[in-house]
Amino acid sequence: VLVPDPTLQLILDLVGIFVFALSGAIVAIRAGLDALGVLVLASVAGLGGGVLRDVLIGHLPPAALRDWRYLVVSLGAGILTFVTYRRVRDFRQPVRLSVTGAIQLFDAAGLGVFAVTGTVKALAAGLGPLPAALLGVLTAAGGGALRDVLAGQVPIVLQRELYALPALSGAVIVVVAQRYGFYDPALAIGAAAFVFVFRVVALRYDWHAPRVGTA
Amino acid sequence: VLVPDPTLQLILDLVGIFVFALSGAIVAIRAGLDALGVLVLASVAGLGGGVLRDVLIGHLPPAALRDWRYLVVSLGAGILTFVTYRRVRDFRQPVRLSVTGAIQLFDAAGLGVFAVTGTVKALAAGLGPLPAALLGVLTAAGGGALRDVLAGQVPIVLQRELYALPALSGAVIVVVAQRYGFYDPALAIGAAAFVFVFRVVALRYDWHAPRVGTA
Amino acid sequence: VLVPDPTLQLILDLVGIFVFALSGAIVAIRAGLDALGVLVLASVAGLGGGVLRDVLIGHLPPAALRDWRYLVVSLGAGILTFVTYRRVRDFRQPVRLSVTGAIQLFDAAGLGVFAVTGTVKALAAGLGPLPAALLGVLTAAGGGALRDVLAGQVPIVLQRELYALPALSGAVIVVVAQRYGFYDPALAIGAAAFVFVFRVVALRYDWHAPRVGTA
Repeated sequence: VLVPDPTLQLILDLVGIFVFALSGAIVAIRAGLDALGVLVLASVAGLGGGVLRDVLIGHLPPAALRDWRYLVVSLGAGILTFVTYRRVRDFRQPVRLSVTGAIQLFDAAGLGVFAVTGTVKALAAGLGPLPAALLGVLTAAGGGALRDVLAGQVPIVLQRELYALPALSGAVIVVVAQRYGFYDPALAIGAAAFVFVFRVVALRYDWHAPRVGTA
Repeated sequence: VLVPDPTLQLILDLVGIFVFALSGAIVAIRAGLDALGVLVLASVAGLGGGVLRDVLIGHLPPAALRDWRYLVVSLGAGILTFVTYRRVRDFRQPVRLSVTGAIQLFDAAGLGVFAVTGTVKALAAGLGPLPAALLGVLTAAGGGALRDVLAGQVPIVLQRELYALPALSGAVIVVVAQRYGFYDPALAIGAAAFVFVFRVVALRYDWHAPRVGTA
Repeated sequence: VLVPDPTLQLILDLVGIFVFALSGAIVAIRAGLDALGVLVLASVAGLGGGVLRDVLIGHLPPAALRDWRYLVVSLGAGILTFVTYRRVRDFRQPVRLSVTGAIQLFDAAGLGVFAVTGTVKALAAGLGPLPAALLGVLTAAGGGALRDVLAGQVPIVLQRELYALPALSGAVIVVVAQRYGFYDPALAIGAAAFVFVFRVVALRYDWHAPRVGTA
């Protein structure tokens, strides 16, 4: 069984919550929601995946309810987005980033971090390699899926872009590393970064998985 | 730790289930669903928030599955709505209430009751003040959000009206009262009434939280 | 308390997962999703109902995460559908089956199997007859509802067809059989078949429950 480094897990979790909460807050603002809707959607996006993970491994109440920092970070990301949204958007940026692009970027960062921490927590809870990888993907994709369903959109994970595959590759890296005894903080951060880069490159070059032609 | 009065908790829970189930049944009828769809959506709206709460604090199986009265009350509200819908609608009412208005009114009543009972159960389960208030809001908003998502609508909690704030204010009243030792049945009922009035007044006078202009 | 036959339960569970996963995969292909979206929606449809059931009775982690066969069967159904979709669709079939018809047929088969296994697991977990029947219906309808909500559609269970009633009738057969001591493998398979036939006949002859006219 993998014994995760609690400090590293906490930091990664909070980073993942922060970036996912940013994505939720931007989705909320673009959908015309008010300040409270922004906070709700930021929290759902930031905390949803981890709550789903904790429920499924039976760690109840979930970390998001036991550790006040989880909620504070997601609310903080919501408030920050609400307050700075127009200023950041209208700032003359070196690289012009669309609103959709910003959502995708923050979402990709959260995807990477949660794919790693979700898999690590699942392994630490005694799950086998395949279920642990699955739970990593669920943790990574769950908050964003809840965010999109609540906002009345088809979840990114079901759209025609590589999304589950980057998350799965990060989860597999963690599972293999744990199996052969070379899981360490550097590998965790490297795996999260790999997922992020994989996802962003796939978006940039419009990579996608094959599809069945229904014509 | 708060030791809640079990009889009061049960009565409030059943009242909240009843009014939320009424809201679910009306949403279902307006969406053209049949008798069984009405019962399903009444149960989802009535029981959803409490089930979510019980799952998150690890009280499994949830009260809705352990206590047959929970299900009977929500099914009863569904049947009552189905049978009397047209008669009530066509009755010459002293104050004419639109269908949307009826949904909002029942939903507001459930919001108040569940914000209180959810927070009380969370405190009794040993959660800290912030998570307990959060769980109170989740309990209050969860059933309605499930109802709306299943009916293919954006949840009320994300629309541009004060919804989460009244629920949160009720939860905070309970947390503060428990902290300073003056929580009692009268306060519980008063806090639920306060949430209800706050929500209805906010609807009536079209109060809303600020929004980021995206123009 | 009902002591279920573990082999029969496993076989029925895997059959239910397989057919629900087929329905999820077809919904995904028809919605234009790529190979990974097909696998995700197949898994959600195949595993969703059972995970919901296990969470609610507190069997955590859920069977879908403890037993690798659950995931393998749902992924296998997704891959099979993806690879053979066009060939099967274009094959000159003795009885021409529309895509919607295929979804409904696989969904009906899963509905029957899960109504039975869900109720059996709930009784084995010590739940009373009414909650056990409710959990059977939830298990049967849950995966399909998640599938439809994620794909941006109103769930079948809320559409104007008999859906919850066949599932409920299967659950009631199991509850009654257990109560009077004649539950056995043959009855379990018979009850699942009854639900399937009931649902298919209701579709074929356009049976439906009464509805409130809102005109």
